[in-house]
Amino acid sequence: MRMTYSALTMGDPAGIGGEIAAKAWQALRVNGPAFVAIADPTWLAAYAPVKIISHPGEARFADAVPVIPIKLARAVTPGAPDPANAAATIASIKHAVSLTMQGATNAVVTNPIAKSVLQATGFPHPGHTEFLAALTGASGREIMMLASPMLRVVPVTIHVSLRTALDQLTTQAIIGAARTTHRALIADFGISAPRLAIAGLNPHAGESGRMGIEEHTLIVPAIEALRAEEISVTGPHPPDTMFTESARRTYDAAICMYHDQALIPLKTLDMWGGVNVTLGLPIVRTSPDHGTAFNIAGRNLADPSSLIAALCMAAEIASRRC
Amino acid sequence: MRMTYSALTMGDPAGIGGEIAAKAWQALRVNGPAFVAIADPTWLAAYAPVKIISHPGEARFADAVPVIPIKLARAVTPGAPDPANAAATIASIKHAVSLTMQGATNAVVTNPIAKSVLQATGFPHPGHTEFLAALTGASGREIMMLASPMLRVVPVTIHVSLRTALDQLTTQAIIGAARTTHRALIADFGISAPRLAIAGLNPHAGESGRMGIEEHTLIVPAIEALRAEEISVTGPHPPDTMFTESARRTYDAAICMYHDQALIPLKTLDMWGGVNVTLGLPIVRTSPDHGTAFNIAGRNLADPSSLIAALCMAAEIASRRC
Repeated sequence: MRMTYSALTMGDPAGIGGEIAAKAWQALRVNGPAFVAIADPTWLAAYAPVKIISHPGEARFADAVPVIPIKLARAVTPGAPDPANAAATIASIKHAVSLTMQGATNAVVTNPIAKSVLQATGFPHPGHTEFLAALTGASGREIMMLASPMLRVVPVTIHVSLRTALDQLTTQAIIGAARTTHRALIADFGISAPRLAIAGLNPHAGESGRMGIEEHTLIVPAIEALRAEEISVTGPHPPDTMFTESARRTYDAAICMYHDQALIPLKTLDMWGGVNVTLGLPIVRTSPDHGTAFNIAGRNLADPSSLIAALCMAAEIASRRC
Repeated sequence: MRMTYSALTMGDPAGIGGEIAAKAWQALRVNGPAFVAIADPTWLAAYAPVKIISHPGEARFADAVPVIPIKLARAVTPGAPDPANAAATIASIKHAVSLTMQGATNAVVTNPIAKSVLQATGFPHPGHTEFLAALTGASGREIMMLASPMLRVVPVTIHVSLRTALDQLTTQAIIGAARTTHRALIADFGISAPRLAIAGLNPHAGESGRMGIEEHTLIVPAIEALRAEEISVTGPHPPDTMFTESARRTYDAAICMYHDQALIPLKTLDMWGGVNVTLGLPIVRTSPDHGTAFNIAGRNLADPSSLIAALCMAAEIASRRC
């Protein structure tokens, strides 16, 4: 496996991003995988030794966190997000994507942002995933996967109200998510014959129409279309029993109809081990599966497990794509 | 603790009810708690020694399963439900409720039924819970709790499509479920100062209105009303992070907005340890938290854990109410 570098973004500097970046560097500095922080070096130096560089290859990762500098407008108070620093947060993401599109880095790993802080300054995207899709020219093809050692889930509808999710759910969206997931499991996860489990939408997967018809009108047609493409799918599964240990052994990823159908089992099983992977982009992108955690920022309480898992998964996928 | 008897119903005789009743009797015959099966003795004798009785006190539970007889119309083929036997399934439930209302038994524990089989013969109730509410004159006050050693959940809306659940959800329904749960945790579960966690409905509990407004319009008003009654509640909680191990330590029961929000975490954590408890009835009622399992009926593969847990919980609640 050749050396890969991930470009790690700053995220909201008032969150736990600096602290978990430093802890991840401590855990990974000797055996890797390596990363380059795209961040304000003064800010990051509060948490770890830093070395300012202009290109990933320039520094020994074991000695200090290599930093490609992005200047913050104002000094940071941990836990108190400041819209004046939103521009630097966004610039960090753009630069990480640009480096990775050029091949200078091999993956983008994003620290958590606070969407409300960015949106208050006019940022038009619902979140990272959509912004990265726009930056890489892949809008509409982006798919969010959450992956932990116990479970991989892909929600077909994401950051919208439950009522809007019901309105957005279509056979085409289910097919698109399943196709992208199928391809990614082969190319990025090294699973030669992926097995997908498609969730129902309603209690008991509708119980033959007695508790909802979307299984019949939307989900079964998607399953039939996917089978016609020789993609291995089962379902629609009753949502409440498809995440048990014995059920999980029967599939490589679950295609879920809405955010919490996917995220409740994932986080209930493993709050800190989950990694958010964006499928369908021309670049590799992962992120930790938690937020900015303003409530504990600056107190040395943050758990870096999810960021470490995100960095390792990014390197693994990137080396498969090489 | 005085001796209590549960009245155990037959359930669908083509399901796993007979097998798990026999296995539960094997597990409980020496140290209890005791139960009386309301069932066809010939059917049950295929699984365990039986003794026909007319009153719970008449038999030594350690020697055989005491059976108050209900005759099946036709011989049973395991795995093949027969509408001709629906009347006996229903009669078993009615008789168990009647015995318990009279005080001859102390709780009703129900074996799984197949709603579609009963409904095909004109049974008008969506399920056990609603039927028991009607039989005991408590219609509209029944609340379903699922309880396992790791988690107690109460869905405010139950066996309806997700879209109907969104339409049915009201502030009053949330308040009613929380009040009934609060009282039951004190009276039936022996928790002197119960703590309730109220779930949000939307991803991230709506994220301040960006992903749904029901938290603001329906759930917060319910929380305020409950606090005015000095019921200890927190929320609305983001649904995906409220079932982690550390989150679960902060409450005694989670009030959930729809079926799968409650059932996914419960079954993901513990598929076979969950017990269904009906709150708000004048009698004690529990049941295993699984279905008839026609696919494995008659093959000695069924796990009796949930029925055993249901019998133990019924006895525990009944002895607290004595």
